[in-house]
Amino acid sequence: MKYDFSARTHTLMTSPLLSIRTQTRRGSIISLAEELPAEELFPLSLLAEAASTVISADAQALQYGDPEGYGPLREWLEDDWLRDKGVHIPQNGVLLTTGSQQAVDLLSRVYIDPGDRVLVENPTSPGFLQVLRMQGAVIIPVEGDHDGLLPEHLKELIVSNRPKALFAAPSFTNPSGILWSLKRRREVLELCISHNVLIVEDDSYGDLHFQRQGRIASKYPSLYALENAGEGGHVLYIGSFSKTVAPALRTGWAAGSRELVGVMAAAKGMADWQSSSLNQRLLYHLLHASAFDLREHIAMLNREYDTRLKLMVELLKRPAWKDCTYDLPSGGMFLWVSLPDGLDALVLLKNALRKGVAYLPGPLCTADGSGSRYIRLNFSHPGRDELLLGMNLMSEAISEFTARS
Amino acid sequence: MKYDFSARTHTLMTSPLLSIRTQTRRGSIISLAEELPAEELFPLSLLAEAASTVISADAQALQYGDPEGYGPLREWLEDDWLRDKGVHIPQNGVLLTTGSQQAVDLLSRVYIDPGDRVLVENPTSPGFLQVLRMQGAVIIPVEGDHDGLLPEHLKELIVSNRPKALFAAPSFTNPSGILWSLKRRREVLELCISHNVLIVEDDSYGDLHFQRQGRIASKYPSLYALENAGEGGHVLYIGSFSKTVAPALRTGWAAGSRELVGVMAAAKGMADWQSSSLNQRLLYHLLHASAFDLREHIAMLNREYDTRLKLMVELLKRPAWKDCTYDLPSGGMFLWVSLPDGLDALVLLKNALRKGVAYLPGPLCTADGSGSRYIRLNFSHPGRDELLLGMNLMSEAISEFTARS
Repeated sequence: MKYDFSARTHTLMTSPLLSIRTQTRRGSIISLAEELPAEELFPLSLLAEAASTVISADAQALQYGDPEGYGPLREWLEDDWLRDKGVHIPQNGVLLTTGSQQAVDLLSRVYIDPGDRVLVENPTSPGFLQVLRMQGAVIIPVEGDHDGLLPEHLKELIVSNRPKALFAAPSFTNPSGILWSLKRRREVLELCISHNVLIVEDDSYGDLHFQRQGRIASKYPSLYALENAGEGGHVLYIGSFSKTVAPALRTGWAAGSRELVGVMAAAKGMADWQSSSLNQRLLYHLLHASAFDLREHIAMLNREYDTRLKLMVELLKRPAWKDCTYDLPSGGMFLWVSLPDGLDALVLLKNALRKGVAYLPGPLCTADGSGSRYIRLNFSHPGRDELLLGMNLMSEAISEFTARS
Repeated sequence: MKYDFSARTHTLMTSPLLSIRTQTRRGSIISLAEELPAEELFPLSLLAEAASTVISADAQALQYGDPEGYGPLREWLEDDWLRDKGVHIPQNGVLLTTGSQQAVDLLSRVYIDPGDRVLVENPTSPGFLQVLRMQGAVIIPVEGDHDGLLPEHLKELIVSNRPKALFAAPSFTNPSGILWSLKRRREVLELCISHNVLIVEDDSYGDLHFQRQGRIASKYPSLYALENAGEGGHVLYIGSFSKTVAPALRTGWAAGSRELVGVMAAAKGMADWQSSSLNQRLLYHLLHASAFDLREHIAMLNREYDTRLKLMVELLKRPAWKDCTYDLPSGGMFLWVSLPDGLDALVLLKNALRKGVAYLPGPLCTADGSGSRYIRLNFSHPGRDELLLGMNLMSEAISEFTARS
């Protein structure tokens, strides 16, 4: 049969992300391209125990649940986890989703029509871009520096384009690892409030903050927390357990005004009825009724990821990388590295893949496919040996090019 | 903030389904409205054991997986389960989804543009209608009888409307419970092939066939199996473990040509990266490495559901129902009952809810909101006592109206 696909389906198929994934899955490639947590740090035995207990205790754990997600886990988020971050959620203001990506997709489906203008950071997450392209949005990148988006530029773009929404990750932006300053957070929030721009705030990486002195929450509050006093509903706050507990539980969330979250819940019911309430119950049991302490667990992750980051930074001091630059992030999962003049990230990737190592090329993180001088390196997943080998292969791949020129 | 939702979001919010769900969730309502399997029949202890084993055995069980789903479960479907139904799947021809509903949604997103014409059975599944409305399809109902769609009517509509797709459930259509005859299956398939109409075949209820004499698969083959010889790719075959094992595992599938399934997998990656590979591994362990036998389990479900259906049919012989009619289904989960003249399903529902019982009113199963003389009653979920009480309350609700007129 000759298929007649829908108008924007081609945006899914032309993504180089697909071919990188296909290639890295074929066995022996060391991937610095992905967004994977370290599986050796998963709380396996506690999760195994939780699963067995939850399933044995109540057949309802395997029945259909609510589109909004398992009530006690939503309450735990509202009353415990998020409140502790200075975030006050209205009752029924949380929707559980299949990871944070589904929260982004659902919001886009209920809020963005083809031709609507949407602002993103430059560079930004490939996941944002895929969803916005499929939705037919006109994607407008906003420039920033190491403190976050530039308010003047943001204002110009808002005034000239009347965008409906801003998609951003103020804490450890994917891919650049930038942590917005408090001042910038306030400025961006105020601009968006005054121009009725909805902020979609992805805080999936926010807990992976390596320099934990005092209370992070008060130093780098989420935009959602900053707006709370007014409760104006200008921010949809998205998070996930994928980076802090385990991705295969596929549990993320969106928190916001009851109106917005209610509409997203209806879209969720249409899209897949509900995520796995079994996984949500399992998580709740782990968080609430086991020996597991999420705060301690995150502190452990941060010590380990910080060590891996430092090792990667050491390896970047080797000669092959001498003309590469980067800003050292204080958290997250990535280093965003600029390549020497004349070296193209997509061209280099072919050489790297031949050698057995992968990374994410910059153009996948920009709305217009620019960014070919940048690469994103993941330091959270590879263990010490893998990181050493992977970075050696990267060095070789780069040296071959720079030696030639 | 005043939200400016996308153009078709209102189709999600105007659905009476939402308010029925909200009301039935409030405690003491007996619901004959839902599509729930009987949770007391779930294989709890085997699933608890499987979960504990799978999580303890391999940290990869909790890591991100592939958008297509867990490989061994896909292979089990291809090589064992579906092949046994006469269904031959090309390699990489299966995508695992969050229940069958997500398969329907993903297909619609990659295949249907606003204004595209799509055929559905009349009546049809509320899940189909929600997705197609959100996608902006022009929905065209096709009439049928107790053997399935009427080929002449189908042909007329195809010729006059040039539809892109037909969404149907030939085995125990939701809500009518119709099992298409082999002759009709062939006729519908041939018409769609010759006019390049994609068939989206939902077989979620197909295994719930109560009169198991000989091999069902050869008597009522899926449209997908019927086309196999040609391998023309005109059928996307959708199924689920929700009705046969447990809904909270949220595991459904779409099987079809590599091209179509490949595009859907890309959309799946955009929508939520992947469903829970933990749940998929758990299912695979249950099916492949435990004492569980899915065929025996389904046979047990069918004996039990048949008993419940017979009880419901007995209760329908009471005086209150004397002017109601229905066709006795040979499987599935529903009775589709026509009410006496002058009784409106939506009006009756208010009275029924006040009494403490819910059902699905017919207009939720039609593209144009007609069908107000019909109600859908679920017999799979309520146990004996609940069924007795629920049907008593229904009788009361109906009697009050018929006594008045």
